[in-house]
Amino acid sequence: MTAALPRDGVIAEGAYWLPIRVYYEDTDAAGMVYHANYLKFAERARTEMLRRLGVEQDRLRRESGIFFVVRRCTVDYALPARLDDDLVIATRLAALGGVSLDLDQEVRRDGSMLVRLTLQIACLGQSGRPHRLPPALRAALASLNGTTARMVTAHAR
Amino acid sequence: MTAALPRDGVIAEGAYWLPIRVYYEDTDAAGMVYHANYLKFAERARTEMLRRLGVEQDRLRRESGIFFVVRRCTVDYALPARLDDDLVIATRLAALGGVSLDLDQEVRRDGSMLVRLTLQIACLGQSGRPHRLPPALRAALASLNGTTARMVTAHAR
Amino acid sequence: MTAALPRDGVIAEGAYWLPIRVYYEDTDAAGMVYHANYLKFAERARTEMLRRLGVEQDRLRRESGIFFVVRRCTVDYALPARLDDDLVIATRLAALGGVSLDLDQEVRRDGSMLVRLTLQIACLGQSGRPHRLPPALRAALASLNGTTARMVTAHAR
Amino acid sequence: MTAALPRDGVIAEGAYWLPIRVYYEDTDAAGMVYHANYLKFAERARTEMLRRLGVEQDRLRRESGIFFVVRRCTVDYALPARLDDDLVIATRLAALGGVSLDLDQEVRRDGSMLVRLTLQIACLGQSGRPHRLPPALRAALASLNGTTARMVTAHAR
Repeated sequence: MTAALPRDGVIAEGAYWLPIRVYYEDTDAAGMVYHANYLKFAERARTEMLRRLGVEQDRLRRESGIFFVVRRCTVDYALPARLDDDLVIATRLAALGGVSLDLDQEVRRDGSMLVRLTLQIACLGQSGRPHRLPPALRAALASLNGTTARMVTAHAR
Repeated sequence: MTAALPRDGVIAEGAYWLPIRVYYEDTDAAGMVYHANYLKFAERARTEMLRRLGVEQDRLRRESGIFFVVRRCTVDYALPARLDDDLVIATRLAALGGVSLDLDQEVRRDGSMLVRLTLQIACLGQSGRPHRLPPALRAALASLNGTTARMVTAHAR
Repeated sequence: MTAALPRDGVIAEGAYWLPIRVYYEDTDAAGMVYHANYLKFAERARTEMLRRLGVEQDRLRRESGIFFVVRRCTVDYALPARLDDDLVIATRLAALGGVSLDLDQEVRRDGSMLVRLTLQIACLGQSGRPHRLPPALRAALASLNGTTARMVTAHAR
Repeated sequence: MTAALPRDGVIAEGAYWLPIRVYYEDTDAAGMVYHANYLKFAERARTEMLRRLGVEQDRLRRESGIFFVVRRCTVDYALPARLDDDLVIATRLAALGGVSLDLDQEVRRDGSMLVRLTLQIACLGQSGRPHRLPPALRAALASLNGTTARMVTAHAR
């Protein structure tokens, strides 16, 4: 699940996999990826996953006033990524609520997990209040979820 | 605890308070501070707090090979900060271990809490392995901690 | 013109001087400030200069639809800034047109010029078309300009 | 030269073309890509171009101490890029000196030029002093240059 990933990622093994290359802009004077920048990588992966599931966030917001915000985010830093690294971000659905969803994201390199993020994402409507997830999105996420459940189990061994 | 804060912050009420202004670079197309950038604000506050406690991180690393890394970070997003906001970052010591410390940081505006971060910071030595916190730093942090304990209690009411 | 600068800078010697500290977020794996980030420093200085001249950009935009955009920017990199550096950004008015202005900005450390930026800034109205600079802003900039002319001459010796 | 570009770009028409997607992290509260971030896009394109020409910058630096720095950069902002835009960065060699090279880079969307960057890049050796461009790199760049000369002419019509 590494080198030959296409630019817009793949859906496989119950997750969405996006390749990300580390550039100078991502690193800091300690020679590693700056700790806040993994959140950028994770957001790119969520955006591309939604696009793959047929959801253009900008269009969704313009047409129905619906948008997503991060409510809570936990980041565990296990190993550092470095300049020129060819990373893969794995995104899995952890829970699907009425107006929110939980995602589990991993920054990986050559099969090793470097950083894990768990996020609670809220769906908001035009007023900025919680809004039910659109049915089409819910169905798309749930299809990912089905395969995810299996993976999470396998992962827990 | 807002307008008249000096550039290098103040120590008061068991916390270190650093003022931060929001610029265009910090915001995104949703009109708010981009969610990853609060981690930058928090890191600036930790750096300036250490400087106030007499610790120049760059010098510490050059002279004794000791540096700090974020092991774990949880961010709760309550309210968004916006362009031109005059924020204050409050940093409190939550726990002081042998080779690590826990910090509780809040991004505040006009007395309201916008974002809360809880961080586990590890102290590493030249080899990249856990290293005991330098005694002088420990003492400085503990003096902050003493007043903090009182604050945390007051906060918990 | 270095250590004791207040957080919101000073106007002196025909220029506006803003202090900026270098944090990990600003650096890259080459151990220097990442080249694009000097543009962020320069924009912070322009924003604070306008604030000192009585112009809150966000309010100006909300109330009269007027905003500023960078049309052209040239950056000369002479020497690198590094982690923990205490920089000063000097901003001078180079030319004042009807709907635009030219600024000359320098990133300095201990009196040495590290990076020079020359910018052409356009004033736009609600339609996004060129808009005459507000008279009050023009007067404020011109007062800075008066002292600047002298400086530029002194600089050219 | 738009939609179907592979992740690592293509060499065609005397230029190197890299696709770049605009994410929230790239935008600001004015709803556009923040002006400093085009320099990041341009640097990604230069890095990937070098990789396509067989040069891993990180390995080059480790093995022979040679690295590249931006000496001068001019950016002309014609039109803004926005969230979700599918951009292409076109990179052309403008001049090839003994210890430096000039590049012409364009940020394009659907065939329109949004932002143009012209850069002077210096090649430095272990001491930080100017170093001759490695012969293999020179040859690779020159091959790009051959086709570029033709393009630049076509462009000038």
